[in-house]
Amino acid sequence: MRYDLPALKARLKGIHIEDNPALLRQKSRDFYWYSPTLKRQLDGVIGDLLAAPASEEEVLRILAACFALGIPVTPRGAGTGNYGQAMPLAGGLVLDLSRLDKVLEIAPGRVRAQAGALLADIDAACAPSGQELRLHPSTYRTASIGGFIAGGSGGVGSISWGGLRDLGNILSLRIATMEASPQILTLSGEEVQKIAHAYGTNGIILDVEMPLAAAYDWTEAMIGFTDFAEAAAYAQALGEQDAILKKLVSVIAAPIPQTAFLRHRRFLPEGMHVVLVMLAPMGSAAFESFTARRGGTMLFRSDLLAEADRHGLPPLYELAWNHTTLRALRVDPAITYLQTLYPHPDPLARVARIHSRLGDEVPAHLEFVRFDGRITCFGLPLVHYTSEARLDAIIALHEELGIPVFNPHRYTLEEGGMKQTDPAQLAFKREADPKGLLNPGKMIAWENPEFDFATGRTYLFPGLEGRDAGEAG
Amino acid sequence: MRYDLPALKARLKGIHIEDNPALLRQKSRDFYWYSPTLKRQLDGVIGDLLAAPASEEEVLRILAACFALGIPVTPRGAGTGNYGQAMPLAGGLVLDLSRLDKVLEIAPGRVRAQAGALLADIDAACAPSGQELRLHPSTYRTASIGGFIAGGSGGVGSISWGGLRDLGNILSLRIATMEASPQILTLSGEEVQKIAHAYGTNGIILDVEMPLAAAYDWTEAMIGFTDFAEAAAYAQALGEQDAILKKLVSVIAAPIPQTAFLRHRRFLPEGMHVVLVMLAPMGSAAFESFTARRGGTMLFRSDLLAEADRHGLPPLYELAWNHTTLRALRVDPAITYLQTLYPHPDPLARVARIHSRLGDEVPAHLEFVRFDGRITCFGLPLVHYTSEARLDAIIALHEELGIPVFNPHRYTLEEGGMKQTDPAQLAFKREADPKGLLNPGKMIAWENPEFDFATGRTYLFPGLEGRDAGEAG
Ligand SMILES: Cc1cc2nc3c(=O)[nH]c(=O)nc-3n(C[C@H](O)[C@H](O)[C@H](O)COP(=O)(O)OP(=O)(O)OC[C@H]3O[C@@H](n4cnc5c(N)ncnc54)[C@H](O)[C@@H]3O)c2cc1C
Ligand SMILES: Cc1cc2nc3c(=O)[nH]c(=O)nc-3n(C[C@H](O)[C@H](O)[C@H](O)COP(=O)(O)OP(=O)(O)OC[C@H]3O[C@@H](n4cnc5c(N)ncnc54)[C@H](O)[C@@H]3O)c2cc1C
Repeated sequence: MRYDLPALKARLKGIHIEDNPALLRQKSRDFYWYSPTLKRQLDGVIGDLLAAPASEEEVLRILAACFALGIPVTPRGAGTGNYGQAMPLAGGLVLDLSRLDKVLEIAPGRVRAQAGALLADIDAACAPSGQELRLHPSTYRTASIGGFIAGGSGGVGSISWGGLRDLGNILSLRIATMEASPQILTLSGEEVQKIAHAYGTNGIILDVEMPLAAAYDWTEAMIGFTDFAEAAAYAQALGEQDAILKKLVSVIAAPIPQTAFLRHRRFLPEGMHVVLVMLAPMGSAAFESFTARRGGTMLFRSDLLAEADRHGLPPLYELAWNHTTLRALRVDPAITYLQTLYPHPDPLARVARIHSRLGDEVPAHLEFVRFDGRITCFGLPLVHYTSEARLDAIIALHEELGIPVFNPHRYTLEEGGMKQTDPAQLAFKREADPKGLLNPGKMIAWENPEFDFATGRTYLFPGLEGRDAGEAG
Repeated sequence: MRYDLPALKARLKGIHIEDNPALLRQKSRDFYWYSPTLKRQLDGVIGDLLAAPASEEEVLRILAACFALGIPVTPRGAGTGNYGQAMPLAGGLVLDLSRLDKVLEIAPGRVRAQAGALLADIDAACAPSGQELRLHPSTYRTASIGGFIAGGSGGVGSISWGGLRDLGNILSLRIATMEASPQILTLSGEEVQKIAHAYGTNGIILDVEMPLAAAYDWTEAMIGFTDFAEAAAYAQALGEQDAILKKLVSVIAAPIPQTAFLRHRRFLPEGMHVVLVMLAPMGSAAFESFTARRGGTMLFRSDLLAEADRHGLPPLYELAWNHTTLRALRVDPAITYLQTLYPHPDPLARVARIHSRLGDEVPAHLEFVRFDGRITCFGLPLVHYTSEARLDAIIALHEELGIPVFNPHRYTLEEGGMKQTDPAQLAFKREADPKGLLNPGKMIAWENPEFDFATGRTYLFPGLEGRDAGEAG
């Protein structure tokens, strides 16, 4: 055995641990299998032990023990990541933060919660004050805030607020370092970007402070277009309506809505491309005027639905973001996906260009967002998977056509392409994790001192140096 | 006498009226005198009678009476307009709506209030529910909501929400027509744009429904730069920070802050160009990181001020928008101003170009806003006034350099340049005001059937036809 597990267990007396193999297998996995490549590569990944601390003090004890024994630690929130972020490549200890789930403080415009708190639970706690989180992944009901910050990027609400990359969407973090005597650091302002989307490779998030927005009983709408370009142009223009407050603007090409959105099937005519919208209810009249002018067909309105018709419908955001992929996968297991960005200038021309090249092999799925002060879209296009070589060719074609791809078929930070590692990021890891025991194998630059930082890629989360000139997009 | 005032008074028995000449003179004026041109042209304007209804029923009686007698009616909110909007060019009745001042309903995301309600009073009523109006003019404490909609355009909050031109910033309006038997119409969705910025020429607003946003104890900041272009670039970039919630981003060139912002004088070093910011308090750490990266000097922070230092300071928004002009005027009565827009592409290049041409004659003042989904700026540049001919030449130079001017030295809709009159607008006035008695003289197209609509100008409030392709900016 490569790690001294009996010694570790001895040091962890009184802390809840698990070593049942079936449970360990389950708690060593996330939703990596959405990628055939990662499925192949990570199927055998399993931790040696799981610890589920009930307090910060227990977290520190665990980190100290693993540090002393040289045992890797891979933090885990709810395990809903898509790229194996929470999977322990080198085995060792899976650090389950789900029991640190309290909402600690709520104030005007801000909430403080422990890392394991689920996003929906945070909002439930904030609801009495008429507030909610600005943004959340479509895994709202199952994901943790710590996992979102360390492993996610954006989602529902990004149409108004941008993503986790944007300064101000994470207010502060308290993290524990992995040193002989673990330290608790508080990071705020731009410092939080060290931790954002870093897969827990540079600290264990204990609690977080997030900004809040006004909570509304969001109206859900689905608008149909027979022409995809019209649907995309409508969505872009709707995104640019500064006075119609929105939480979601997604566009999914036929036939995906018709084949995958089973519970909404009756609202979706054959052949129609569908725009999903969540809007604040006071904006309905403006939204109706806007939609009518642009020739969209109002297929569905949650606020106009009879109570009986509401029954059994999932919330609209569970048809969007990576839930679109989930629903498509359920119907056709040979589906996978990509993550793309359509930057200015002419984002929709880029969308048109790639999809006219790829046709039915790559059904279009756009998520409109605020990005560096403008409205544009990310893509989560589906792919009818045939081979890894073909997948790589499709990615290369995107890049050739000026469409950055954030590769969801890679488990390292650098190859995933969202998070830039640079000397400053590396220096911080050296401080926070001097033995490199946190989530090893996820940061190429750590393992490989020859790694070339200067790739000229587009990163969502730029390196910590030279941040003035807006590195990404 | 041109109007049968005794007959009118007989019909208005029981309604509060005024005919005292000094009071009539005062209530026939707004802040037109900010313009030397309008001062010259409108100094003699005076109504013949003022009526101040206490109820909708009284409004309808007044309109019916004036219709029957052919007497013009000019509605008045608080009379803080800058272009003589509320001044009765043809005399007649001044209809003072200030007693219709109730806040009628508050709900999540929306408020309904009578037209005469003051903006600050509406917010005070909404405060217990943690809400406030999205945007307001800098005359927050003195202006009415009806006057803002009929005569204003945007202001504090436009950096997040755009302006009154944006679909969704006015939810609905109840208006009274001026017919033999005045009708009450309810307009919602895009229909409200008939009334917006129409100077009351097509209906008397009785009450309005406006969207609300989350209310915060906004932090005020002033940031100094020695270089104006840096100040402007900082402001543009701050505007583009989608996750730092703001209510104001203004840039005023030295020496105006130093000479005009008397109560803030001690915070403003000689020669510094000043950026005024209102931000939601949870964004402070992000804002500090951002500002430090860009080399701005934090001159003032309301949240870090000792209680004693707070004494006597006006709210920061009373240094911005047209309050900048007010304060400059108080120090130098030979100051006037313009209203400009710096559209994409390259708005700041346009700013640089015009100000390098005009130098000290035209001190720069920029107000950053969301405009058609992007961040750009309006200008309220000051002008050291010499003559009307020179003022016109300065305007012409702006237009030549691709900077639309919304001329504040004109009292008609068309020459003011913000509101486009077109056949649809004219048709609506024919329905709502068949005798043309509402605020006559303010709509050239009404008086002059030969008027050419197709000017190719930039309008903030486009005509009612062809609204799909975004007419303005
Ligand atoms: C159907 C589906 C839809 C999705 N939609 C979205 C979406 O819209 N937007 C989006 O961004 N993501 C999305 N995801 C991915 C994922 O659900 C989210 O990113 C989610 O927020 C992750 O939270 P988690 O608690 O499950 O994290 P986990 O998977 O447990 O962990 C994610 C990463 O964070 C690290 N980590 C977890 N907790 C801590 C901690 N306390 N300290 C330090 N590191 C920690 C882990 O090591 C791992 O690297 C989706 C996934 C699926 C399957
Ligand atoms: C120092 C200063 C700063 C300013 N800053 C701003 C600013 O930031 N943004 C901005 O947009 N404006 C600004 N203004 C202009 C003005 O204060 C605002 O537009 C304000 O909202 C007007 O409201 P009011 O009640 O004073 O309107 P009034 O001046 O009384 O009326 C304005 C117009 O509306 C019409 N009207 C009024 N009530 C009704 C009604 N019930 N039905 C139909 N028509 C009606 C009048 O006939 C007139 O045409 C500023 C003015 C000054 C002097």
